[in-house]
Amino acid sequence: MATNQEPDLVEVVKDGIYIIRFNRPKRKNAFNDKIMLGLGPALERAASNPDAVIAVVTGTGDYFTSGNDLSNFTKGASGSGGASDKKGEVNLELLAQATVGSFNRLVKAFIDFPKPLVAIVNGPAVGIGVTMLGLCDIVYATNRAVFHTPFVSLAQAPEGCSSYLFPRIMGQGKAAEMLVFGKKMNAEEACKLGLVTEVFPDEHMDQVWPRLHQWAKLPPIAMMRAKGLIRSHLKDKLHEVNDLECKRLAESWTTEEFMTSLMKFFTKKSKL
Amino acid sequence: MATNQEPDLVEVVKDGIYIIRFNRPKRKNAFNDKIMLGLGPALERAASNPDAVIAVVTGTGDYFTSGNDLSNFTKGASGSGGASDKKGEVNLELLAQATVGSFNRLVKAFIDFPKPLVAIVNGPAVGIGVTMLGLCDIVYATNRAVFHTPFVSLAQAPEGCSSYLFPRIMGQGKAAEMLVFGKKMNAEEACKLGLVTEVFPDEHMDQVWPRLHQWAKLPPIAMMRAKGLIRSHLKDKLHEVNDLECKRLAESWTTEEFMTSLMKFFTKKSKL
Amino acid sequence: MATNQEPDLVEVVKDGIYIIRFNRPKRKNAFNDKIMLGLGPALERAASNPDAVIAVVTGTGDYFTSGNDLSNFTKGASGSGGASDKKGEVNLELLAQATVGSFNRLVKAFIDFPKPLVAIVNGPAVGIGVTMLGLCDIVYATNRAVFHTPFVSLAQAPEGCSSYLFPRIMGQGKAAEMLVFGKKMNAEEACKLGLVTEVFPDEHMDQVWPRLHQWAKLPPIAMMRAKGLIRSHLKDKLHEVNDLECKRLAESWTTEEFMTSLMKFFTKKSKL
Repeated sequence: MATNQEPDLVEVVKDGIYIIRFNRPKRKNAFNDKIMLGLGPALERAASNPDAVIAVVTGTGDYFTSGNDLSNFTKGASGSGGASDKKGEVNLELLAQATVGSFNRLVKAFIDFPKPLVAIVNGPAVGIGVTMLGLCDIVYATNRAVFHTPFVSLAQAPEGCSSYLFPRIMGQGKAAEMLVFGKKMNAEEACKLGLVTEVFPDEHMDQVWPRLHQWAKLPPIAMMRAKGLIRSHLKDKLHEVNDLECKRLAESWTTEEFMTSLMKFFTKKSKL
Repeated sequence: MATNQEPDLVEVVKDGIYIIRFNRPKRKNAFNDKIMLGLGPALERAASNPDAVIAVVTGTGDYFTSGNDLSNFTKGASGSGGASDKKGEVNLELLAQATVGSFNRLVKAFIDFPKPLVAIVNGPAVGIGVTMLGLCDIVYATNRAVFHTPFVSLAQAPEGCSSYLFPRIMGQGKAAEMLVFGKKMNAEEACKLGLVTEVFPDEHMDQVWPRLHQWAKLPPIAMMRAKGLIRSHLKDKLHEVNDLECKRLAESWTTEEFMTSLMKFFTKKSKL
Repeated sequence: MATNQEPDLVEVVKDGIYIIRFNRPKRKNAFNDKIMLGLGPALERAASNPDAVIAVVTGTGDYFTSGNDLSNFTKGASGSGGASDKKGEVNLELLAQATVGSFNRLVKAFIDFPKPLVAIVNGPAVGIGVTMLGLCDIVYATNRAVFHTPFVSLAQAPEGCSSYLFPRIMGQGKAAEMLVFGKKMNAEEACKLGLVTEVFPDEHMDQVWPRLHQWAKLPPIAMMRAKGLIRSHLKDKLHEVNDLECKRLAESWTTEEFMTSLMKFFTKKSKL
């Protein structure tokens, strides 16, 4: 990365709002190690920064995020320290444990975040980019946004507490279509169902900012008290769900079904 | 029943889909003993059949099901072994215990069903035909479908975990209108509220099948893992709710209010 | 109060329906001590009255209720016995304890109410006038109704179990907009989201009564059984939430943020 370039995860605080931005536009803001391992600590900085009363997660460019980069799996990524065994080959079980560990910590940071957290979904979202929305307080999306959670076609498992939150948010039928069968959802439907709080025409997405600036002037302790009350009724359950989902996710990564799906995925990709 | 006739509960497995069909079209697919006692075991066969990755419940003809046949009560039905006392008269308390026992087992089978379960609601649904939908993962319905739970007018109690699931699914106001006051709901509203996942024009109801066939090709273990995760957060609670509802149901069947309602019901029916 | 005048809280029972009406139309039915301390006991009378099978809460005139009268705070109201210390000055901590105590008892009465409870929202609702709706079984509203919970701008905390119920009812995004940021909601949106069960054109609001009269003829014990089952799954949790919210509310009333907000509020008001 050139020194005068922005990092993969940009953090800015201005007018009471702490903005965290996924910044790999050429890779559709896919989560690499920098983002996967950096997002949790970024949220912690937003939580403790006295100048920030509201936090925002968003993406650079046309995509919100295309989610976890599956090619991580072929190169022992995500804080696994390589996860290679003595012969230098990738040890899949070690890799799964390491990846799921960093994943678990990331979701924990969302669950425990004490200030109002707004997702500004500037484009399509995939995988963790969709499930993290259930852990945000408010989700504003462009009409260009599309939501896709192809967990099962890749023989993986729903994460980010989606197995618990999505049926509550959008009803069990639509949640099953998304999480079990991988059906895509557009912005309008996601809004009707509650995954998205409000849809903005893409060319007017910036209308979200005056509203947030207005809200950032409200009494900050009272805002945290209100958010804290709302979250308190779910917090223990969400931590429990996160742990269970991560367990299932790690299991899924060692199955034959997953290996087959992964090979199909890359074969298909290499043919494009 | 003639030997060349289909049974009251038809089971077919084809292309990965296990179809269970209520088959008493002349009686609006009302639940008799064959269906009430047979549906749970049919679900268990669907669960253990290695060729089945998805299951479907549907009905023959114009009705999904008109629910539990109240005339069962006048002839000591539903696995009660007649439930007559020594004088040969129907012992209402024995009958209530027996009926509620088979009911409880049926609901248990829905709660514990481990594979994706899709209801294809081919027409109006009444009573248990409505409440079982809350226990399915996805509900596709014809626009002709109407949903009616006249529990209170018959002095009975909500069952099938509807007292817990319906407020979650459709909001407490609409759930109270249905479960406390017996208000009917049409397919369009049921879809807007989440009881139905998608409505199909009656003449295009078969468009549901290509979709299911496509989904039946997804990795089966991953599908069960996703469904299992979603259900795991509710399972204990649902069993508890089922037991409590069945207790209240059995109580309701021994009340004066129920006797009065039952007499009104049959008087009205005999006058038609 | 003149003897030929109606009291601030009117109670009438007719045709099986117990009507409780906020009756301070000149003050937008704001809750004074009479209403704050009287509403719980009124609900208890409705619960035990053998002639009442359904209860209704509504308001006189153009407003449902503008909520808790903040001027109570400047004069030691709400059952605080003045809450003055020895020097005759208002002791804010005593006042907070007394106010929150009567508040807690009021919410308890809603949680424990055993019969179907219908809110007929005849106009705008503010604060407790909005949050109590989550504790009613059914909410019918005029299209003139608007819903506003400006808790945070007054540095207070969400109450009436809204921190738990509103995310369940309307989705977490809309609940956060209302409870954390104080965004207003109109009747149509409130209905789409489930806070309101049905909207009536203002000139036809009386169409709600034939429906309620019809329903009041249903078997009363069965109605209570159905409502009791539905509520039983939430009751313990709601009591716990009420206690926690009241604790946070009492805390909020002793903060500097609250004092500042209160002064702003009255300065603004006195300038109008």
